[in-house]
Amino acid sequence: MRTVSTLDELRDSRLSLDGTVGLVPTMGFLHDGHLSLIRRARDECKRVVVSIFVNPTQFGPKEDLAKYPRDLERDFRLIEPFTDLVWTPAPESMYPTGYQTWVEVEAVTRPLEGAMRPGHFKGVTTVVAKLFNAVQPHKAYFGQKDAQQAAVIRRMVRDLNFPIEIVVCPTQREADGLAMSSRNVYLDTEQRKAATVLFHSLSAARELYESGERDAATVREKMKDVLASEPLAEPQYVSCADYDTLEELNEIKGKALLSMAVFIGKTRLIDNFVLG
Amino acid sequence: MRTVSTLDELRDSRLSLDGTVGLVPTMGFLHDGHLSLIRRARDECKRVVVSIFVNPTQFGPKEDLAKYPRDLERDFRLIEPFTDLVWTPAPESMYPTGYQTWVEVEAVTRPLEGAMRPGHFKGVTTVVAKLFNAVQPHKAYFGQKDAQQAAVIRRMVRDLNFPIEIVVCPTQREADGLAMSSRNVYLDTEQRKAATVLFHSLSAARELYESGERDAATVREKMKDVLASEPLAEPQYVSCADYDTLEELNEIKGKALLSMAVFIGKTRLIDNFVLG
Repeated sequence: MRTVSTLDELRDSRLSLDGTVGLVPTMGFLHDGHLSLIRRARDECKRVVVSIFVNPTQFGPKEDLAKYPRDLERDFRLIEPFTDLVWTPAPESMYPTGYQTWVEVEAVTRPLEGAMRPGHFKGVTTVVAKLFNAVQPHKAYFGQKDAQQAAVIRRMVRDLNFPIEIVVCPTQREADGLAMSSRNVYLDTEQRKAATVLFHSLSAARELYESGERDAATVREKMKDVLASEPLAEPQYVSCADYDTLEELNEIKGKALLSMAVFIGKTRLIDNFVLG
Repeated sequence: MRTVSTLDELRDSRLSLDGTVGLVPTMGFLHDGHLSLIRRARDECKRVVVSIFVNPTQFGPKEDLAKYPRDLERDFRLIEPFTDLVWTPAPESMYPTGYQTWVEVEAVTRPLEGAMRPGHFKGVTTVVAKLFNAVQPHKAYFGQKDAQQAAVIRRMVRDLNFPIEIVVCPTQREADGLAMSSRNVYLDTEQRKAATVLFHSLSAARELYESGERDAATVREKMKDVLASEPLAEPQYVSCADYDTLEELNEIKGKALLSMAVFIGKTRLIDNFVLG
């Protein structure tokens, strides 16, 4: 596994990677969710590139950029068996003085995370476009855990003609159902238990759907009811939306996305299930 | 020369182009200015791709999209000796229903053309990003005639890590100095004569600079004076700016751009000289 930080080093190393190249963009502090993406890339591509970059432009001014967990040495150890090239760009090289170019996706970034985190997806799409142009992968791997991010990236790739296949991989979960996230380390013991309520809420809604319910409002109410049963949980949004456009549904038909953002203490967690 | 229109056809044909690929993006109705770009690409690259696309998103609602001159058969005849592949995408394939992604460059798009044509550069940078991603050229060729466009594209390429070298080629002129432009066909005989005032104005300013003048206001005044001598000319802006940032200068030092937009009747013409 080769480790590079500057764009020139990356480009030199990329030239020596023959065959299909898979990119797994990450912000580091890797868990089994990331590793499932990297293993999938390993299965499908001759070469695997992992980027590790805590992208400042996708954090709001009141968000957790400064305290976002980092452990580069541990990350390297974890990915070493599966990875050909790891790129850890410095923030000042990604956004040097005079930087002024942004990629923005419109409608699909507006609801859900986009509504709660203004500017978040502008930072995501811009950095992903930069990573794509720098690494020139054939395939890129994202987690279903960040469902809206995956929908936004799919839209960007189609709209801007990126010659890249986007592979979205299933959410990895702890034994009790909690979706894996680098932010789970913020939770204390009591909060950690309470955090399973997202999974239980989504599971209850999916059961309702599987029993034949197609009214989206009823399904949303079920999710809210279960969340309300957990005193430590403060829901921010609960959604039952079209899988591609993320517009809220009246009636569930075709592929749909159940999703939610919930505060457990000061920690903001998201999770989702796909229906259909 | 192979001619393709759909993105799939383009990608198939691109795969068969070996070696260095040069792209010349155009809106068609080609003149010697375009041909100079194509010849330069032919000299520098093993393969030459020309795109012909009158990009709707870079025209304002009151601009000349509908009447923009087109003659595809003539264009094909002109470029055939120098071109491997020509791509003529349809507007509805570049911007299908649900299209929602934009590339925007900030500071350098604000003055000059950007101030007069709101949204123009957002259309330009978006379509050029799409062309770059589709064609995947090693080099791309633009004319110095559209000086701000060249500065904006250079900035976009640097900021978004496009692995593409931008080559900016000198403005081609008619015998009397008028910069070549597809829009020159809008001029009647009298206007065509009057249109040389842009060249004369820029030439007078450059003479002043070459005689040692470094005060930008004095140089701008000289350009305005010469333009005022032509009754058919209505200047829209006259600028003496930094070559890279396009910020107006007080004192001329380093590389600078003299530029102007002038109405001759209803036809809007632009021209520029580089100093230093």
